[in-house]
Amino acid sequence: MTESIGRQARAAAAPTTVITAVSPSMGPESIESHYDEALAVPGVLAEIAAGESAGAAAADRADGYVIACFGDPGLDAARELAAGPVVGIAEAAMHTATLLGRGFSVVTTLSRTVGHTWELTRRYGFERACRGVYACEIPVLDLDDPSPETVRVLTEACREAVAKDRCDSVVLGCAGMAPLGPALSQEIGVQVIDGVTAAVKLAESLVALGLRTGKQGEYAAPRPKKYSGLLSEFTI
Amino acid sequence: MTESIGRQARAAAAPTTVITAVSPSMGPESIESHYDEALAVPGVLAEIAAGESAGAAAADRADGYVIACFGDPGLDAARELAAGPVVGIAEAAMHTATLLGRGFSVVTTLSRTVGHTWELTRRYGFERACRGVYACEIPVLDLDDPSPETVRVLTEACREAVAKDRCDSVVLGCAGMAPLGPALSQEIGVQVIDGVTAAVKLAESLVALGLRTGKQGEYAAPRPKKYSGLLSEFTI
Amino acid sequence: MTESIGRQARAAAAPTTVITAVSPSMGPESIESHYDEALAVPGVLAEIAAGESAGAAAADRADGYVIACFGDPGLDAARELAAGPVVGIAEAAMHTATLLGRGFSVVTTLSRTVGHTWELTRRYGFERACRGVYACEIPVLDLDDPSPETVRVLTEACREAVAKDRCDSVVLGCAGMAPLGPALSQEIGVQVIDGVTAAVKLAESLVALGLRTGKQGEYAAPRPKKYSGLLSEFTI
Amino acid sequence: MTESIGRQARAAAAPTTVITAVSPSMGPESIESHYDEALAVPGVLAEIAAGESAGAAAADRADGYVIACFGDPGLDAARELAAGPVVGIAEAAMHTATLLGRGFSVVTTLSRTVGHTWELTRRYGFERACRGVYACEIPVLDLDDPSPETVRVLTEACREAVAKDRCDSVVLGCAGMAPLGPALSQEIGVQVIDGVTAAVKLAESLVALGLRTGKQGEYAAPRPKKYSGLLSEFTI
Amino acid sequence: MTESIGRQARAAAAPTTVITAVSPSMGPESIESHYDEALAVPGVLAEIAAGESAGAAAADRADGYVIACFGDPGLDAARELAAGPVVGIAEAAMHTATLLGRGFSVVTTLSRTVGHTWELTRRYGFERACRGVYACEIPVLDLDDPSPETVRVLTEACREAVAKDRCDSVVLGCAGMAPLGPALSQEIGVQVIDGVTAAVKLAESLVALGLRTGKQGEYAAPRPKKYSGLLSEFTI
Amino acid sequence: MTESIGRQARAAAAPTTVITAVSPSMGPESIESHYDEALAVPGVLAEIAAGESAGAAAADRADGYVIACFGDPGLDAARELAAGPVVGIAEAAMHTATLLGRGFSVVTTLSRTVGHTWELTRRYGFERACRGVYACEIPVLDLDDPSPETVRVLTEACREAVAKDRCDSVVLGCAGMAPLGPALSQEIGVQVIDGVTAAVKLAESLVALGLRTGKQGEYAAPRPKKYSGLLSEFTI
Repeated sequence: MTESIGRQARAAAAPTTVITAVSPSMGPESIESHYDEALAVPGVLAEIAAGESAGAAAADRADGYVIACFGDPGLDAARELAAGPVVGIAEAAMHTATLLGRGFSVVTTLSRTVGHTWELTRRYGFERACRGVYACEIPVLDLDDPSPETVRVLTEACREAVAKDRCDSVVLGCAGMAPLGPALSQEIGVQVIDGVTAAVKLAESLVALGLRTGKQGEYAAPRPKKYSGLLSEFTI
Repeated sequence: MTESIGRQARAAAAPTTVITAVSPSMGPESIESHYDEALAVPGVLAEIAAGESAGAAAADRADGYVIACFGDPGLDAARELAAGPVVGIAEAAMHTATLLGRGFSVVTTLSRTVGHTWELTRRYGFERACRGVYACEIPVLDLDDPSPETVRVLTEACREAVAKDRCDSVVLGCAGMAPLGPALSQEIGVQVIDGVTAAVKLAESLVALGLRTGKQGEYAAPRPKKYSGLLSEFTI
Repeated sequence: MTESIGRQARAAAAPTTVITAVSPSMGPESIESHYDEALAVPGVLAEIAAGESAGAAAADRADGYVIACFGDPGLDAARELAAGPVVGIAEAAMHTATLLGRGFSVVTTLSRTVGHTWELTRRYGFERACRGVYACEIPVLDLDDPSPETVRVLTEACREAVAKDRCDSVVLGCAGMAPLGPALSQEIGVQVIDGVTAAVKLAESLVALGLRTGKQGEYAAPRPKKYSGLLSEFTI
Repeated sequence: MTESIGRQARAAAAPTTVITAVSPSMGPESIESHYDEALAVPGVLAEIAAGESAGAAAADRADGYVIACFGDPGLDAARELAAGPVVGIAEAAMHTATLLGRGFSVVTTLSRTVGHTWELTRRYGFERACRGVYACEIPVLDLDDPSPETVRVLTEACREAVAKDRCDSVVLGCAGMAPLGPALSQEIGVQVIDGVTAAVKLAESLVALGLRTGKQGEYAAPRPKKYSGLLSEFTI
Repeated sequence: MTESIGRQARAAAAPTTVITAVSPSMGPESIESHYDEALAVPGVLAEIAAGESAGAAAADRADGYVIACFGDPGLDAARELAAGPVVGIAEAAMHTATLLGRGFSVVTTLSRTVGHTWELTRRYGFERACRGVYACEIPVLDLDDPSPETVRVLTEACREAVAKDRCDSVVLGCAGMAPLGPALSQEIGVQVIDGVTAAVKLAESLVALGLRTGKQGEYAAPRPKKYSGLLSEFTI
Repeated sequence: MTESIGRQARAAAAPTTVITAVSPSMGPESIESHYDEALAVPGVLAEIAAGESAGAAAADRADGYVIACFGDPGLDAARELAAGPVVGIAEAAMHTATLLGRGFSVVTTLSRTVGHTWELTRRYGFERACRGVYACEIPVLDLDDPSPETVRVLTEACREAVAKDRCDSVVLGCAGMAPLGPALSQEIGVQVIDGVTAAVKLAESLVALGLRTGKQGEYAAPRPKKYSGLLSEFTI
């Protein structure tokens, strides 16, 4: 899935943008619960830390980051750690959707993630713009090389969202759905927004404008302190 | 001011993006009231209509539009009219600011525009992210080739916003302030966001992703009908 | 339709109130989109300006204004322009509805106007009081001398609103529906509120109390400046 | 105070409107706490009941009611009891204020009532329109035939509200302040809204339009049942 | 019903807690409207006053109070009157529900109480956590020694709430439903929360922690003043 | 600090409650940033997992959990993992504060945590009840055996909160402040609420009522899956 997400990202990126798609070396194989998400965060932060210090020269450091899981795990912490901008794909998809009309709907994987998705709409200011969150009950890993039945179920969920919500666009609630975006859009007659490509463009834009996370308050670099046990390598 | 805004836009745009900066052929010379804004809208729509039909070939039509006045005048109507995406600079600046931290403050021109600015934060979902709106009481036209005193007063307003709101960034509440952005940022030690450049990047991103205003509902093309009197040329 | 609205207004007004019903000399023949609404505004403002300067004597000037389109087009600008109070019919209908119970529903014309109606509920503070907005998909002009089928469809929409929302009243979402109010109310067994008559009473009340738009801030008279092109006659 | 309120009401009413000002025969001599307000309600309801059954002929029954205490005590219950409309003065003042601009401030009596005033702004949908609530720490009964010092303190509170909130109008937070309205307005240069006169006009308007509380749901007449003890006379 | 509520409360209370269940000596036999609720309040306050002065010794005074009607009648006034904490059962049930998951639904008696229940969710901060309010149309007194049909209808309403809202728990909207809680929970497979037991535990907790209503502002003891007529005994 | 928190908890607990105070074996030595908080979560979850499986007999398993850091780190994930209830101390303090009056203020450690504290007020429904968040700029570890200067600064922050917000209570924004609670309350004349003791009582109450996190939706046990790398021991 990392590879496929990387491909999506590169297809959307400007020719001069270098995309490095990495998968954390620790944590759950997929994110479908608060527990999964909480344990995905250290791996995300380790990758950010690697991106910040990569190589000797500043030229090798990442200019910005995309967190390619729809729960935007670790976004706030990543913003403290990184010098450049960090964009989550849920955040990016929702920002993008609100530029295209008044209301969007989200189609997510398991229904147990619906509550968290609404939480994100509130965190980002889009509670009102979000007209509904629909679960297709497809586990994340089934989206990797999906069966026709999986595609059919997902299409049905998108169609239901459009019919019930009269939304101006549909946001895909999982990075693994990204490759299906164009076909889904074609099928349902409404634009489908994939957070991966949306986040790549937003991150590129921020870098191009020389903008980065504000560092004078909440998102200043973490104060140096000791981390113990299993996580001692996170000591700054 | 149109020229200066065009320069800002071009400096931010990708090398392959062609920016055409136009000023409406009708309406107020600056926008500082609801009355001004209302009467600026027909001119904006005329320019959008021109952009849609420009020349014979599709290649000559505008791929997207930026409305470069902080009140985002005519944004909803423009979205009905245009096939491609339309982005307002208030909208763009606020979206961008929320990607850089939890809270931003706006520095606007006359205090009579403060209410409308808060209205926009609500329209776009950023009421909570906006920590304050500060008027510097400088009329819009004074920002064109500004005096040192104008710069000083504007800088002071930005500084007050940062001190009172502990904001992560400052949003400039007038297209005419854009050229002063980098100097202001330097001066106050907090990032300053200019909606013109922010909107250019968002519009470029949407075009690159093949995204446009959803056309199956609220933002469908207006139904053809007769327009009378002075405005008869707006008949579709 | 102007004539019919004038009749409704006169029937609701106090015997001493003089109602002058005018239709703008420029703009769309009906308002069913953001584009229509934006282009209706200059005509509204021209009528306000005419009302302000009518005749030589102050006694001939309008004491207050009602904007008789449910989108309340140009309301903020009109408030800057007029010395006396200005009331929109959407605003008036919603204020009135909330005095009669906890919740109201709106029955509007085309579904493309639903988003804007919700926007108005938020602008006026009645988002929570509004339980639903129902489109009957009848174009505005079909409401002028309506066919039995039009009446049937509209009645059905009102009935659906009452059944789904258990609302305390139904607000008619178009000035053109006003003459049908009493019959609809009779038919569905729930009070139907028409913004035209509601606005006349509110405007009369404000005038009687000597109240007018606050002029010391956002709604001060627009600053004099040049308006160019087609709209040069709007120069103040 | 009842007499003075009656005078205010009559001055605002249409010539054909008959105002009967009554003071409940039971309850606190003034309302300055939740306890006072709770115990004022039975007396209010007894007066409503009296108004509903007054005399033998329908012509003698009250067409509508105004509850002339800024806490709007018993408003919901009164609406169940009365056939015609019931309007509270806080409600009326706030509705009126929002027709005159974007924001109002309230000047109330004791600071212990501030929380309840904010609660009312939320109940009626005006939380956002209300920019501030200012207590002048003057007990209600001191407003009856007020000393010059009382007037001075109250004026100061109004002035503070205007200076801090840049509000479009000031709402008086106590029926007892009504006679001072015009002088206060003169003094501070901003319109002052008194709920008593505002409520009279709203009630008159509703009666004129033939509108009344919706009776098919929450505000239906209370179900008949036994009331015991001290309150047995409230049995319906 | 008082006896049954007392039994419920005692079963939930710590062994050292003494529960005194009292029914007001005045007011309606059940609470099903705003009118009922308003007239229930004096009786509640009389019981609080009795609890405050009971006997000569401080040891005999109540340490805290539970108001066992789901409308939480008189809660604010009771807090002014009592030295110790006062907890309403709607409040308690909602606080408790939000500790057990993201969303709860309420099953109430008559549909005319639905509006007030939503009002309470807003008052306490749980509007978002509350996913729905369902009326089973069973009058309060029918819940005392309920028929099998009553139980069936109530169970159905709970089941509907769970099916539609996917709520994490169901809150019972009437003290009279408390004895049915465990059976309902068993039947529908979702936890059912009864406000009586929830409130007992919250009140016990506050007393144990030495916490009580803040007395330096809104909830200070009412100012002494005269109460007239039927309610003269409420004079402080 | 763990020991001191344990002491506080035991002092508040019922005699029959067994408190086991544990400090995670991995993670930061204090939590003062999003980065710290994110990396504290795995350790919290490991302790919950230990509590769930402790010993062979069910009698040895924890009946419920308190997460004793004011950011409530890992609360949602812990609720998925634990069979019994889990209560965070920020959550507990805020719930408790709203039972004691209309508004509370929070005094927290570093100003960089203010944004997150507001986020929590929104998550729990108390945004409106929270009147202000005040940072005393004391690092967490300085609260362990605090110097007189630390106590003075903290007292000053509490006093400022009371003066500015007229709050009904002050919530301590760090577990480390708990031992200072009674002295602070004494000093400032307003009740001070410590989340540790508040959470102990809430958790005890839920256990006593037989209530636990709803397990039929968002908070069901996490689906079993593989966790890799450093975190492989978290595999379920």
